[in-house]
Amino acid sequence: MKRREVAKKLKELGKEILEEIKKGENPHIEIPVRGLSNVIFSGDTLQLGDKVAKRYFFHVAHAKKFMQTLLIASFCKSLIDEGIHASLRDMFYNLKRTLPNSKENTFDEQTESDPIVVDLEVTLNVLREQLHLNADVRGRVVGNVIIEDRGDTIDWSKLGSGGWAIPSNVEDLVFKKVKGEFILVVEKNAAFERLHEDKFWKKHKCILLTTQGQAARGARRLIQRLSQEHDLPVYVFTDSDPYGWYIYSVIKYGSMSLAHISDRIGTPSAKFIGLTISDIDKFDLKNWTIKAKEVDIKRAKEMMKYEWFKHPKWQHELKLMIKRGIKAELEALSGKGLRFVTETYLPTKIETQDFLP
Amino acid sequence: MKRREVAKKLKELGKEILEEIKKGENPHIEIPVRGLSNVIFSGDTLQLGDKVAKRYFFHVAHAKKFMQTLLIASFCKSLIDEGIHASLRDMFYNLKRTLPNSKENTFDEQTESDPIVVDLEVTLNVLREQLHLNADVRGRVVGNVIIEDRGDTIDWSKLGSGGWAIPSNVEDLVFKKVKGEFILVVEKNAAFERLHEDKFWKKHKCILLTTQGQAARGARRLIQRLSQEHDLPVYVFTDSDPYGWYIYSVIKYGSMSLAHISDRIGTPSAKFIGLTISDIDKFDLKNWTIKAKEVDIKRAKEMMKYEWFKHPKWQHELKLMIKRGIKAELEALSGKGLRFVTETYLPTKIETQDFLP
Repeated sequence: MKRREVAKKLKELGKEILEEIKKGENPHIEIPVRGLSNVIFSGDTLQLGDKVAKRYFFHVAHAKKFMQTLLIASFCKSLIDEGIHASLRDMFYNLKRTLPNSKENTFDEQTESDPIVVDLEVTLNVLREQLHLNADVRGRVVGNVIIEDRGDTIDWSKLGSGGWAIPSNVEDLVFKKVKGEFILVVEKNAAFERLHEDKFWKKHKCILLTTQGQAARGARRLIQRLSQEHDLPVYVFTDSDPYGWYIYSVIKYGSMSLAHISDRIGTPSAKFIGLTISDIDKFDLKNWTIKAKEVDIKRAKEMMKYEWFKHPKWQHELKLMIKRGIKAELEALSGKGLRFVTETYLPTKIETQDFLP
Repeated sequence: MKRREVAKKLKELGKEILEEIKKGENPHIEIPVRGLSNVIFSGDTLQLGDKVAKRYFFHVAHAKKFMQTLLIASFCKSLIDEGIHASLRDMFYNLKRTLPNSKENTFDEQTESDPIVVDLEVTLNVLREQLHLNADVRGRVVGNVIIEDRGDTIDWSKLGSGGWAIPSNVEDLVFKKVKGEFILVVEKNAAFERLHEDKFWKKHKCILLTTQGQAARGARRLIQRLSQEHDLPVYVFTDSDPYGWYIYSVIKYGSMSLAHISDRIGTPSAKFIGLTISDIDKFDLKNWTIKAKEVDIKRAKEMMKYEWFKHPKWQHELKLMIKRGIKAELEALSGKGLRFVTETYLPTKIETQDFLP
């Protein structure tokens, strides 16, 4: 969606409210309900259902939020018009003020303004990034790819040991050349550095990306764009524990709190390359496992109930973890030698297509 | 220090122990004492004093640590010989095993291996990075700089919105071209993105770097190298609170826990550009301050006692913070308009050389 279209959507929101005012009606905004009661697993991704709530101006419980929604919509409109971006915190500070002749503030805490941004995303069906609001940044990427970003041509294959720092907003990035047979997404930076140093991405013709923990929105969107626009399989590589597996599921299906944008930041075709509990036997890693904590077991039990972990292979892994009470980190592979991950583990998994869905 | 020299130091450590064994002496290693009792503020940086401890092989309380020290020294030697790098966690997994005919492990937890790496740093007077052990990565940089890293030529002025992701190890990086009048180090990524989008570094001819919170070792070393090898002033820009000010002091003087390497990762010439509590009045930011928490006040009181915060200007700021019970974030500047930081705040501070030492 182009910048102009997003600006138009914001303008129309304002127009509709103006119309209501002219007609003497109670101005309102329709906002799809977020929250678990309205989250559906489509089989492909987590999606929002069709429950909608109305927010009225003349309503004791709604008036303040109504005002806040319009303030933020107007702020985003001017960001887009000026062609600049802001963080959520910058926005909060910029909009925070005391209303004339009152002791009432527009916003007291950022916890008030953040959810309204999501309301707007849902209502207008746009991404926060398209509203020019930047999210957290995290993640780095290397590979045989040339992009254009802000007028610069950037070759991801020529960035030394550092790689390209993934920005919060990858909407305007243009792919000029994408050469690779798959995308390898690694949870941890240490494993990324190992693979990068061993030139794994050159040898195996892939794009190598680390999310550095839970994937930030910029990284998720970048994975999706690369995968969908260039028809590349995505293999996700995390610790063998519920936290790591959940990182995978968020990349693939989206998350519950951002269910309304799963189709724009999820990558349903992604596959899980490892680590699994079964890998511990397959690759003889038992000397380097860790005892699972109570919280891990609890989380694994919860995840067994999630629809998107219902596949028998996942149920098997989750059960195995609970039964054996163990987990393993990516670094466990270093127990077998530092280059075991590069030379044995990953090539074996890819060659035998030993993935989890 | 070249790779060969570091390898030689490790070899000599081994040789000395061999000599002792041949002579029938109790093999030992001399390790400078770390910890507060041996940390001295030199006026320029935090330094280690000259207290030394001896670690013996035939000593009930030392034997295990002695063995661990040699295991790690030998591991680092082979990393250097092979020309590869590892994370501390990878090293732990790689060295963890059960000693033959016993139930004793070489290491049970990473908390045992980490401090021994620091012991080796201190003993050999080398950096962890020179032992080929990678640290956490964090931080990004842009500017009119061309570097060479792992055979790639990287132009920091042509990396789009992302910038160059600072790796954990910047020892082997070569500066080919460095054009700039100063280095601006920003604590927070949001401020970095604002300044980058506004092309601050182009207009003001500077190198722009964000540490993304407390500066990682790679970022600190990069700041030092840029500043010392190219004689550039460094201005540090953090939140106006004890946490932000401490980030500044770590960049400038080093930290207590890494006092033994302050001369290799500290930048004593660094200056503090803001935010100060005084800035709140100077720039009319009082609408966007935050009430200081008890923990902030307590921390400020502690910092008032640190020798490296004894300068009257710092004492004044710390007192002011305690007295008024407020703090302010970088984003507070957005209260005055999103571009206030780019167009007014920073240019004014630089023009009037309004820095704290």
